[in-house]
Amino acid sequence: MSNHEFYMDLALSNAQALKGQTDPNPLVGSVIVKDHRIVGIGTHLKAGEPHAEIHALQMAGDMSHGATIYVTLEPCSHIGRTGPCAQAIIDAGIQKVIIATLDPNPIVSGNGVNMLREAGIDVLVGVREDESRKMNEVFNKFIVEKTPFVTLKAASTLDGKIATHTLDSKWITATEARLDAHLLRSQHMAILVGVGTVIEDDPELTARVSTGRNPLRIVLDSTLRIPLESKLVTDGLVDTWIFTSKNQNFAKRQALEDLGVSVFETSHETQVDVVDVVRTLGEKGISSLFIEGGGTINAAFLENDLIDKVVFYFAPKIVGGKTAPTFIEGMGIEWMKDAIDLRDGEFSKVGQDFKFTGYPQKRGNNV
Amino acid sequence: MSNHEFYMDLALSNAQALKGQTDPNPLVGSVIVKDHRIVGIGTHLKAGEPHAEIHALQMAGDMSHGATIYVTLEPCSHIGRTGPCAQAIIDAGIQKVIIATLDPNPIVSGNGVNMLREAGIDVLVGVREDESRKMNEVFNKFIVEKTPFVTLKAASTLDGKIATHTLDSKWITATEARLDAHLLRSQHMAILVGVGTVIEDDPELTARVSTGRNPLRIVLDSTLRIPLESKLVTDGLVDTWIFTSKNQNFAKRQALEDLGVSVFETSHETQVDVVDVVRTLGEKGISSLFIEGGGTINAAFLENDLIDKVVFYFAPKIVGGKTAPTFIEGMGIEWMKDAIDLRDGEFSKVGQDFKFTGYPQKRGNNV
Repeated sequence: MSNHEFYMDLALSNAQALKGQTDPNPLVGSVIVKDHRIVGIGTHLKAGEPHAEIHALQMAGDMSHGATIYVTLEPCSHIGRTGPCAQAIIDAGIQKVIIATLDPNPIVSGNGVNMLREAGIDVLVGVREDESRKMNEVFNKFIVEKTPFVTLKAASTLDGKIATHTLDSKWITATEARLDAHLLRSQHMAILVGVGTVIEDDPELTARVSTGRNPLRIVLDSTLRIPLESKLVTDGLVDTWIFTSKNQNFAKRQALEDLGVSVFETSHETQVDVVDVVRTLGEKGISSLFIEGGGTINAAFLENDLIDKVVFYFAPKIVGGKTAPTFIEGMGIEWMKDAIDLRDGEFSKVGQDFKFTGYPQKRGNNV
Repeated sequence: MSNHEFYMDLALSNAQALKGQTDPNPLVGSVIVKDHRIVGIGTHLKAGEPHAEIHALQMAGDMSHGATIYVTLEPCSHIGRTGPCAQAIIDAGIQKVIIATLDPNPIVSGNGVNMLREAGIDVLVGVREDESRKMNEVFNKFIVEKTPFVTLKAASTLDGKIATHTLDSKWITATEARLDAHLLRSQHMAILVGVGTVIEDDPELTARVSTGRNPLRIVLDSTLRIPLESKLVTDGLVDTWIFTSKNQNFAKRQALEDLGVSVFETSHETQVDVVDVVRTLGEKGISSLFIEGGGTINAAFLENDLIDKVVFYFAPKIVGGKTAPTFIEGMGIEWMKDAIDLRDGEFSKVGQDFKFTGYPQKRGNNV
């Protein structure tokens, strides 16, 4: 590992620690080094507040003259709420700029580097590029496509069942995996379930972790079967949005809206159109969506090419059962050769359970 | 790692290399060390041939005097075909004996150690004990219970499907995982499938690896539907045994027997009784069984507490489908809290696929 990677890793780990706190802005970290000593560290904390480089420059003060700055994302060149960081770097007398990755927005990508180079500063791009891009995978998609980065989460037995044949599902995974999933909830702007889950479990869908952030709650409910007394309708903890079909119950819709729930009609006659859901969420500024549906909802999003990432928790246990539900159902894919490939898949252990993360290969048939 | 572990690891890795070649004997390795130099290495090669310690003592010759011998299994004390190794160690003037694990057979366990200690030799037991026991998990069960060590193998998509809803299953995993499964086949004395697999695929069920060892082929076929022209009946590559029910077709049975196939009736009227199958195999001296059934057969063995180990290959892909078959079906377990736990579960990567191994917690309701 070179010095460049050492300092960039420090910038990355500081940035990563803010996950979920900077939306809709990306995670960014910065480190300033002079004469082999760290003289400044900065991290972007919150939208509307200074960018990482500005915090690092402030900490470094006069030590910035002739120093090297590491930053996990290309410094901005536009006059935004906190002004062009590239100009601040130039003004501070920085000698060298090491950047993990360029701005993902094609409209401005490269502009910051150009501004720095025109001022005679030595610029190197690409140190820990993959790590930086992965850290901001949500932001990188949303800034370009204007639709949310969608993560599909499921928890099943090792034989793929999300309940027994009697539909008993408590509990599949142990405490550590359930806490891990709650942490993921807190890092998303919205969480989505089907109305069946609401009717059966009456969940709060809050993140039981200490960050205090709870995602917007979204329910797919084609005929507005959601009980008016369910927690999602009455508890007022976080907003609840319901997506329905043209075949909705208009009296029920009025009752829900009177209770403060937002109801959105999608374009399908009898089902909720999941493509509409994702498009609408994007228009409303929702940059990340966490799906905790059953096998039917999960299949609908996957078959429509709407899933960016999957997180599957597997408990090392077996329940069997020809009729026991699995976590991806629907009609299914016809031929094995056409299966949806999961790229960059990896397993890790969480408590006594296993966690798989991967990225479905998009097939370009939608969104 | 101490010196003891270093030398025992060498003995273990030599023993492990013979996997599949020593049946019905266990894998055993031995190393002799004198004055910090290895002076003898021995491995048990084949039933009826010398034990590992004898080979090592022969290599060491006079250097055995005052030396330390490492052996992965307690030296035998009985006069067998090559016996007793404990006496040979005493006669060779060995000063110290380091043993990984005692003999698993309760009738003789500890006798070798006692013989050595009575001769004034320093004996240490327990260096790499877990590793040695796991290496001989098949032998350790069979020598005590007289029924085969049963491994259940399956290959599925990550969402638990062994075929699409159209029953297309070629291919789920890639070449590396399929080769890995063939290597496992070659390390078992028998391989078992259902008659459905024979009718659909007409497989040879041979191990396509270069060891040249092919397991006995076993088919579960309650009404003797197996085609007389199928490869398992006609190719003569390895013996084929068919287990059937009382409801068998006696004319078909005669035809099969005329073609050299052995047919065994089990005690159930209309189904193959899998408990009978395992008991019969044990009586016939089959110490290891590799099951490559579909979801129904797999469930029958699991629900009857007959599986000692599972090996599941998962391809990082999804096919979905409410009606697509999964690798453990049957009726299934009623309550999630009663799920079959898989102990010591671990994932590894095999080519682009993932391999899970684990040990079903026995519930004591059978065999």
